[in-house]
Formats: sequence, C-alpha cells, structure tokens
Amino acid sequence: MIPNKKAQAEELPKERLRLWLKIIKVHATIENEIRRRLRSEFNSTLPRFDVMSALARFPGGLKMSEISSLLKVSNGNVTGIVDRLAEDGLVLRVAVPGDRRAQSVRLTKAGKKAFATQAAAHERWINQMLGGLDEAEIGSFNQLVEGITAYQNEWQEESDA
Amino acid sequence: MIPNKKAQAEELPKERLRLWLKIIKVHATIENEIRRRLRSEFNSTLPRFDVMSALARFPGGLKMSEISSLLKVSNGNVTGIVDRLAEDGLVLRVAVPGDRRAQSVRLTKAGKKAFATQAAAHERWINQMLGGLDEAEIGSFNQLVEGITAYQNEWQEESDA
Repeated sequence: MIPNKKAQAEELPKERLRLWLKIIKVHATIENEIRRRLRSEFNSTLPRFDVMSALARFPGGLKMSEISSLLKVSNGNVTGIVDRLAEDGLVLRVAVPGDRRAQSVRLTKAGKKAFATQAAAHERWINQMLGGLDEAEIGSFNQLVEGITAYQNEWQEESDA
Repeated sequence: MIPNKKAQAEELPKERLRLWLKIIKVHATIENEIRRRLRSEFNSTLPRFDVMSALARFPGGLKMSEISSLLKVSNGNVTGIVDRLAEDGLVLRVAVPGDRRAQSVRLTKAGKKAFATQAAAHERWINQMLGGLDEAEIGSFNQLVEGITAYQNEWQEESDA
C-alpha cells in the first residue's frame, strides 16, 4: 500500500491527541497506585510525601513560600500539610535568623527516618510498575520525552508572545 | 567497554525512577499550558472542559454519579462544576423518566457549540505541543506506553492480593 500523504497529514493531529490521552492515562494509573500504597502502607498521602521529599533535599529548611513554589501548590495547602506533619512529629517550624516574622520548616530526625523508608518503597514501586521497560526501552522513552521537551520552548514562547 | 552487569542491575531502578519523574514533568507542563489556554481563550477550566467532554460523548445525558465515576472525581466537585455550567447556559438538568429523585445532565445547544469550539482548539494545542513527534515517533511512544500498560495487570493483581 502506498500511504496517502493527505490522509496522513489529517491523521497526525488525531494520533498526537490519542497519544496525549494515553500519557494522561498511564500517568493517572501509576499516580493513583502510588496514592493507594502511600495510604495503605504508610497511612500517608502524595502531598505529604512531596513536601517531605522537598524538605529532604534541603536539610537547612525551607520557608513555606519556598515549599509552595517548589511544588507548585498554594501556600494555604502547604500550611495544612505542614500542620499535619508537625502534629505527627515529622517536621519542625524554626525561626529564620534575621527575620522575626518568617519561619522555615525542616524534617525532624523521625521525619528523616520516615521519609527514607517511604522513598525507598516509592523507588521499589516505580521499579515494579515500570518493570515492563528494559534499559534500551527506557533510553528510547527518554529520547521521545526529550523530543517533546525540546519543542516546548517553541510553543511556550509563541503563547507568551 | 564491557558493561558491568551488577552496576546495570543497580542502575536500572534509578533509571526507571528518573523516567517516572520525566513523565510527571512532561504531563504537568502540557496540562498546565492547557489550563492556561482554557482560562485565557475561553475563560474556562480543565474540570469544566472534562465535564463537557464527557457530556458530549453521551448526548442522552448522564447522571451526576455517572459523570463523577467517568472522570474519577467526587460527586461534590461535579455538582459545583455542573452548577456553574448551568449558570452559563451550557448544560441543563433534566428529570430521569421513571426515577423521580434522579436528574441527568446534558449539554444545551449552546453547550454543544461551545464544546465543539473548545475541543477543536484543544486538538490544535496538543498537535502543536506534541509537534516534535512525527508518525514513527508516535508509534514508538505508543509501544512503550503499552509496555507499561501490559505490565500493569501484574502489579495491580499483586497489590490486590
């Protein structure tokens, strides 16, 4: 069969849309399973895990505004999450030297230990869920994702214009 | 260089984790851009778009519980979204024959027209954002996503056990 150029040109946008729907699906499936396991194995949530993960990367502590800009969630949401983590003894609010009104948040010793356990489990889960992909397939996948990312500057600049 | 089998075995889980973080990133980047454009071009939101999209697929109407199970969001959230769509004249609540307490929701004529415009724009945006991928790359991408999906039964059954 000789491919019909015009039909292909009309089909490509549909195929890109279908691919996007598949990316949404696979993302949601894995994320939901992570939420479910965090809940059942650690009685925790993904937002809590994400906040602890950010704090683990900054042992010196982070201001609330820094956590919220790192995780791209609202200050109000971060406050609620940090309140509950503090209740559980996993994080501590500390004064910021030289700024009497600001507070920064850091993991407690118990928080560091809890996060290390959860992060190791999280890595095992992902390794299991992406277990269908070998070294070579991960390589191709990365290339394709980079193909989208490289193109990103174009449409982001366009839409900013 | 002869690859070191043991080093590879230790590296693979890390690579799968890095790939997952990239999938999260590319998903969030595209989704945020869609949210931004829905807001700026149609003064709308992604949840509104998703509800209208579900209703467009079911011209006979959907019960609130059906919308919420299709979109995997809570009934309360769907109620709020449908309220606002109804305010804008885009959806209509209608009685369900034979069930006096139930209501179903369907798009109005104006809602169908608005959704058709937004869906066409959405397809153009995705076509632009995934424009870095040609036919062959979309094919490989699909295969890789299916590689994850095919494996899914294994870890979902395992975790259900």
